[in-house]
Amino acid sequence: MSQSKRRGKQTIFFEKQPVILGTGTVAGKKESEGPIASYFDVIAKDNVLGQNTWEKAESEFAKRAGQEAFKNSGISAEQIKYLFGGDLLNQCTGTSYGIRDFGIPFIGLYGACSTMALSLSMAASFIDGGYADYCAAVTSSHFCSAEKQFRFPLEYGGQRPPSAQWTVTGSACAVLGESGEGPRVECITTGKIVDMGITDANNMGAAMAPAAGDTILTHFKDTNRDPSYYDLIVTGDLGFVGHSVVIDFLSESGYDMTNNYNDCGLIIFDRKKQDTHAGGSGCACAGLTFCGYLYKQLLERKINKLLFVATGALQSTLSVQQGETMPGIAHAVSIINPS
Amino acid sequence: MSQSKRRGKQTIFFEKQPVILGTGTVAGKKESEGPIASYFDVIAKDNVLGQNTWEKAESEFAKRAGQEAFKNSGISAEQIKYLFGGDLLNQCTGTSYGIRDFGIPFIGLYGACSTMALSLSMAASFIDGGYADYCAAVTSSHFCSAEKQFRFPLEYGGQRPPSAQWTVTGSACAVLGESGEGPRVECITTGKIVDMGITDANNMGAAMAPAAGDTILTHFKDTNRDPSYYDLIVTGDLGFVGHSVVIDFLSESGYDMTNNYNDCGLIIFDRKKQDTHAGGSGCACAGLTFCGYLYKQLLERKINKLLFVATGALQSTLSVQQGETMPGIAHAVSIINPS
Repeated sequence: MSQSKRRGKQTIFFEKQPVILGTGTVAGKKESEGPIASYFDVIAKDNVLGQNTWEKAESEFAKRAGQEAFKNSGISAEQIKYLFGGDLLNQCTGTSYGIRDFGIPFIGLYGACSTMALSLSMAASFIDGGYADYCAAVTSSHFCSAEKQFRFPLEYGGQRPPSAQWTVTGSACAVLGESGEGPRVECITTGKIVDMGITDANNMGAAMAPAAGDTILTHFKDTNRDPSYYDLIVTGDLGFVGHSVVIDFLSESGYDMTNNYNDCGLIIFDRKKQDTHAGGSGCACAGLTFCGYLYKQLLERKINKLLFVATGALQSTLSVQQGETMPGIAHAVSIINPS
Repeated sequence: MSQSKRRGKQTIFFEKQPVILGTGTVAGKKESEGPIASYFDVIAKDNVLGQNTWEKAESEFAKRAGQEAFKNSGISAEQIKYLFGGDLLNQCTGTSYGIRDFGIPFIGLYGACSTMALSLSMAASFIDGGYADYCAAVTSSHFCSAEKQFRFPLEYGGQRPPSAQWTVTGSACAVLGESGEGPRVECITTGKIVDMGITDANNMGAAMAPAAGDTILTHFKDTNRDPSYYDLIVTGDLGFVGHSVVIDFLSESGYDMTNNYNDCGLIIFDRKKQDTHAGGSGCACAGLTFCGYLYKQLLERKINKLLFVATGALQSTLSVQQGETMPGIAHAVSIINPS
């Protein structure tokens, strides 16, 4: 029994520290106009990549992100033993149709917008466990498929309240290996569901922030670290509202998050110039920001210790219609450059 | 690197052979009238367990199945390090609302009706990898929530073609541990997506059968076994149509499946007396049949070597409406009694 891998309640330290060998990113038009546009591999100006529905477009994004990741990592689909992935669409069809031709054993995940961290966690666990030399982690979201499914058809032209976030159009994939050059997955803190009773589907940041706070707090306690240990701590897609909730929440426990904490939803868009209200959201928000911008910051050693905490809200349209609250979850991944 | 854990293309042998310490099963009315009714822990004659929607009922089933599994295994929620689970509902709300109060780190899965085998595979992998002493695996489905979501509202009274299957109402949960008494997870073969171009949502067995055939064939090749190695091979919920497709498929590769192969969809209902057309389906079909009937057959040593192959069809209502085919997936788990 490897008791030494486990720390505290929810954290695992990997003996092998799996390497992120390469990533692939495919982004939509609005994302191509934001502050981190230059970090994406493929820009789909038409948002559809030649497909005739938003959902087929999302799958095509996922397929292309996988292909880019295979190319950039130098690892072929045939070498990859497991692919972990999921998305926001009903029955996770964005992922399953996107990756069906790869022929890679597939472990479908559902973590809503936390999927990039969840899939990285699982891929690293399977490599560290000795089950695979190479694994891939993929996720996707699309503004048009998400609005249609979760809120209103675009044609309806509904007003968006200031707390609403903008679902990122894109897909991101990372290929992990047991050895090689690159940033390494040092440890993970897997989140539990936190439900604080939020019922407003236009205020997802507030629904997910308590889960992010809980996972970050647990991570600090499990590892005996504080925020200053990391060069950067990023949450997935809390946006403007949730970001400040996390700062307040951790402040109450004595942790100062004001120096090195940001949110992917605030990084990927220029919130004011791009009219995205509270910021970006969707699986691809944390996906593109991590696999595009942050991964390259790690490669260039502008960051050496990153705590990546993607967050998900686990409601469905129907559960909200039935008066249910929105449970949140957040998964943390510590990614470091070996010194 | 534990190369010895891996065999062939897609199979992992566990060094620790995690033990299935106990299971919990909650079944609906129709299931309580079927051939294996006496193996279920809780029968919900009203199919709703006091809830006012089908979806809330499904979550309540999942909660109760978890509670039964904790009780029957003697392992409390606090002792369980990870819970793996998912279901058929949009955004997997059956599981996430059902288990949200358990406070267990949660890894959400989407494998459609393959979820029982997928969650068992993941739970065993995390125990074998040294990440947990105890893990839980849970899934659920509900006839009324599934018909409403995937086909027609019940009130519509649509005719069901003979190839249609009957979604099982229930939930099942298994608790796995690193040591203790009970059947053990010997190895797993994780499936890849197989899409043979089936587009009829009333013929799910035919859509999933090629994936089941592919995973079983890969399992035999990876392990150098043939069907006679096992006391019983069961697929998840192919029903009458898919069951015969699997026999034909493996016959073409020289494997005789006619002696010891059955399907959970044919076990859980008396197909003719209970008017279920091609048999049972849904996540709870393989879930209840395994965690109820088969697990107890293993405990009583009426079976000592079981290959459990749950199967999923990964389409959504929308993907079928958009003319997409139905991709299938199947995950195999070998569960044995140590001699």
